[in-house]
Amino acid sequence: MAEPLRRRDPAGPVRIGGTLASRGTAVGTLAVERTASEEAGAIGDEAHERARLAAAIERAKAELTALLADADDLAGEILGFQLALLDDPELIAPGEAALADGRGAAAAFSLGIGSLIDDYATADDEYFRARASDLRDLKARVLRALSNAVDPSQIAEGAIILVMDELTPSRFLELDFAHVRGIASRIGSPTSHVAMLARARGLPLLVGLDLTEDALDDLTDGSPAVLSVGSLDQLVIDPDAETLASARKAASDAAAEDAESRRLEGEPARTGDGTAITVLVNVDGLATIADADPDVCDGVGLTRTEFLFADGPADEDAQYETYRRIVEWADGRPVTIRTLDAGGDKPVPGITPDGETNPFLGLRGLRLSLAHPDLFRTQLRALLRAAAHGPVKIMLPMVTVPEELVQARALMDEAAESLAKAGVPTGDAPLGIMVETPAAALEAARFEAAEFYSIGTNDLIQYVTAAARDTASVAYLQDPLSPAVLRLIAEVATAGRTRGVEVSVCGEAASLPEVIPALLDCGIRTLSVPPAAVGRTKRAIAAHRLG
Amino acid sequence: MAEPLRRRDPAGPVRIGGTLASRGTAVGTLAVERTASEEAGAIGDEAHERARLAAAIERAKAELTALLADADDLAGEILGFQLALLDDPELIAPGEAALADGRGAAAAFSLGIGSLIDDYATADDEYFRARASDLRDLKARVLRALSNAVDPSQIAEGAIILVMDELTPSRFLELDFAHVRGIASRIGSPTSHVAMLARARGLPLLVGLDLTEDALDDLTDGSPAVLSVGSLDQLVIDPDAETLASARKAASDAAAEDAESRRLEGEPARTGDGTAITVLVNVDGLATIADADPDVCDGVGLTRTEFLFADGPADEDAQYETYRRIVEWADGRPVTIRTLDAGGDKPVPGITPDGETNPFLGLRGLRLSLAHPDLFRTQLRALLRAAAHGPVKIMLPMVTVPEELVQARALMDEAAESLAKAGVPTGDAPLGIMVETPAAALEAARFEAAEFYSIGTNDLIQYVTAAARDTASVAYLQDPLSPAVLRLIAEVATAGRTRGVEVSVCGEAASLPEVIPALLDCGIRTLSVPPAAVGRTKRAIAAHRLG
Repeated sequence: MAEPLRRRDPAGPVRIGGTLASRGTAVGTLAVERTASEEAGAIGDEAHERARLAAAIERAKAELTALLADADDLAGEILGFQLALLDDPELIAPGEAALADGRGAAAAFSLGIGSLIDDYATADDEYFRARASDLRDLKARVLRALSNAVDPSQIAEGAIILVMDELTPSRFLELDFAHVRGIASRIGSPTSHVAMLARARGLPLLVGLDLTEDALDDLTDGSPAVLSVGSLDQLVIDPDAETLASARKAASDAAAEDAESRRLEGEPARTGDGTAITVLVNVDGLATIADADPDVCDGVGLTRTEFLFADGPADEDAQYETYRRIVEWADGRPVTIRTLDAGGDKPVPGITPDGETNPFLGLRGLRLSLAHPDLFRTQLRALLRAAAHGPVKIMLPMVTVPEELVQARALMDEAAESLAKAGVPTGDAPLGIMVETPAAALEAARFEAAEFYSIGTNDLIQYVTAAARDTASVAYLQDPLSPAVLRLIAEVATAGRTRGVEVSVCGEAASLPEVIPALLDCGIRTLSVPPAAVGRTKRAIAAHRLG
Repeated sequence: MAEPLRRRDPAGPVRIGGTLASRGTAVGTLAVERTASEEAGAIGDEAHERARLAAAIERAKAELTALLADADDLAGEILGFQLALLDDPELIAPGEAALADGRGAAAAFSLGIGSLIDDYATADDEYFRARASDLRDLKARVLRALSNAVDPSQIAEGAIILVMDELTPSRFLELDFAHVRGIASRIGSPTSHVAMLARARGLPLLVGLDLTEDALDDLTDGSPAVLSVGSLDQLVIDPDAETLASARKAASDAAAEDAESRRLEGEPARTGDGTAITVLVNVDGLATIADADPDVCDGVGLTRTEFLFADGPADEDAQYETYRRIVEWADGRPVTIRTLDAGGDKPVPGITPDGETNPFLGLRGLRLSLAHPDLFRTQLRALLRAAAHGPVKIMLPMVTVPEELVQARALMDEAAESLAKAGVPTGDAPLGIMVETPAAALEAARFEAAEFYSIGTNDLIQYVTAAARDTASVAYLQDPLSPAVLRLIAEVATAGRTRGVEVSVCGEAASLPEVIPALLDCGIRTLSVPPAAVGRTKRAIAAHRLG
């Protein structure tokens, strides 16, 4: 039974509250993504149902493979997990008896994946519990294929606001953003990966909608709706004239800002009072450079290299080729490449330690590289070789004490010398550090061997506030505008100015329009952001005047 | 086969390296605690062996119960776990067949506990892996009882240096410190609980001895030996005259320091140049006050209250009675009581969340109390009632932002008002905060409602360095003397002076003689330490002159 929705008078608007995950305002019509039913349609004989199930699984695999082609590192991992599962005979085995009993393809598939979802959802380990959402996503995809249900985001005309039970990364990636202007989901957290994807894209997302699953199914497709995230934090159905007008104003302001962002994307970044700001991009893998135009940025501020270690460490030549392609794409602009930042929430089988009680406070980043000098040496050699093709800067993650930088420098000098002896072409590469531990931020000037600093706000915030960035119950503490965080950022900026070396910010905060003014006021003059956020970042810079 | 030990000439000393766990130098004779064999002695018939096993288990239980009487919170938990296991019929069940086969009590017991040890030792979860050591300890205790083996630390004459495979907390607690002057163990980590116990007692402990288990068994009891931890980091057997002389000098200096510590214990603490320093004690439970003399200290700087929540939350009256007993013990001196600091490495069933990926960065301390206002209110009421019997100060753990303190203050005022309305006697209690997150340390002055500050160095160090205090692989980063940590301590001291409120240090660093001078130089004038460390702390204070 659906609970009655709060509608003050029969003709008045329905307001459903939720939690901010990605700011913005959308005006459009409602499209409800209902959970595909297991029992839709007539059930054929066993052979027929078996064939239908096989066909639906093939269709799901084709869809996932198509998504995989454009996926970055994180999304690729999720899609790969789903694809591998569809190839696993164990997934279908529990449904065999149901098929033989004539219960049909949908029921049989649900049976197998359902018990797996239960296992994951009730696991002790938060990692597995988080994975349950990917499994529910896979279940919905196969059931959708079985029922030949049409994707509501594909059939709608004009602007739509999508409402659903749960938004998963793979679902997000296949949305048609020509129509989808905002999303509201019943389940979800502001600290989830999909919330980060929405913020990177600038799409309004409200999570934790205050309504039951039944009430969601009872919403009427095509109702006029307003999604206001960051001011009202509400989904308003059948909005009154006042709500509609103010949302239209907010949406048109946002559209004007988007147009302004697009206009500014190709221009050099300047503050409102004319100070030049360097805007770099973050590169997650080769997919990023395939899509992005190097001419809109001043170089690469962060290249994540974890994707080269996903199936065990890539060898020196494979790493070199990848780094070289990024350097060539950048076409003379500096390319900052971060050495392996495994550990924490990025396990690499065979390299990162198992069973750490607090992986974010464990053997990760440079600590791990120094514990595996052979692995580290291979990466340093590949980086120095890539530097023969253009300006490369080598960046060390999770540095805590100056001694670690000294050790890394010694290994790098050794690698350079041995390459030189062998006559292998290399280039000079400045060596810098990520500033993401409070210790490094508090004592930045003591890292005398650092040729540049890059502040990783995501980790810095979680250590300063002692609140893990993937834990929703302490999300209220993870504030990039907290005075403690801004004070450290300002101190690092001062240390860089005093030492005459560059200080950039490469965490998520660098691309948030509400945070950029504070970063500039702290003395930051270089920001590194996802390619999709370059225009928006330049606009936020242009709108700000330095004090 | 034992590997040959490194002895340069046949008559020369054998030097075995290890890792510093607790500083100090000991000179004595070697006592080797060999692993009790499963096959010692003749095996009787089944009934006889069954009776022997039952008797040995009873003896082990009696030993553990005797230890439990004096145990603090942590030790009590470990001993309770071992006692519960001895009462579990499942422990003996796997050995039933062996008993029936005539294989004897030792083999039968080893079989049951052995498979349990394997399960724990190979668990994914570091918590269970750590527990395997408690199980090995229990196995050794029962086998010792079966073989009637005499405890080597009990039979030795004069000063001995105990060498063993692994030192566990329960073994540590029953040592006779009239004889045992130092311990070297093959297995172990400087971050273990037993290492903390050794440091609190000031007993030299070297762990990770560089020798095989066989080589350990081959050492000769009664050999002259030197244990030097903190300078050589070696166990030296058959030491040469020079090593012996310098160790004797170090040991006699230490003995003189101990005598000086005992002399100073009852005096008010003063620096070498006459500045008065307040020395408080940490109270872990009622066992602490049963043993300690209140006249040696200026009050209680930290009362841990987690022991009241170990078997579910104690009710208001039970909490009140316990707090009152501590207040009465302190006899007019101020008693600082910390509200529940669950979470992190201190789970409380039914209260702390399960499966957090990084519990040290999760819902813990005050965050958890604010999420359970009923629980928090009960504790605040009990504390305010105890304050009717003497000066009580209420201290909040893991405060991160001023808003949390404001919320806690409001709940406390509510509790005081409701008690007053009901006519229940209460006292005024100043409300202060632990400073253990970098955010709180960086912005201490912004906590305008804080009536005192107490710096928790254990947590502060782990957050500043982003290195968990229970993870051995990153122990090299956990340095209380690191410039970043000292800088924050000095800033909090300044904030306290400016605001006119007390700033104490209550982490392990407060009782380390090598750290105390730096704390005093940072402007700290109040230290809170374990009762056993009061004399040593006052000596380190007396030896230091403020700059």
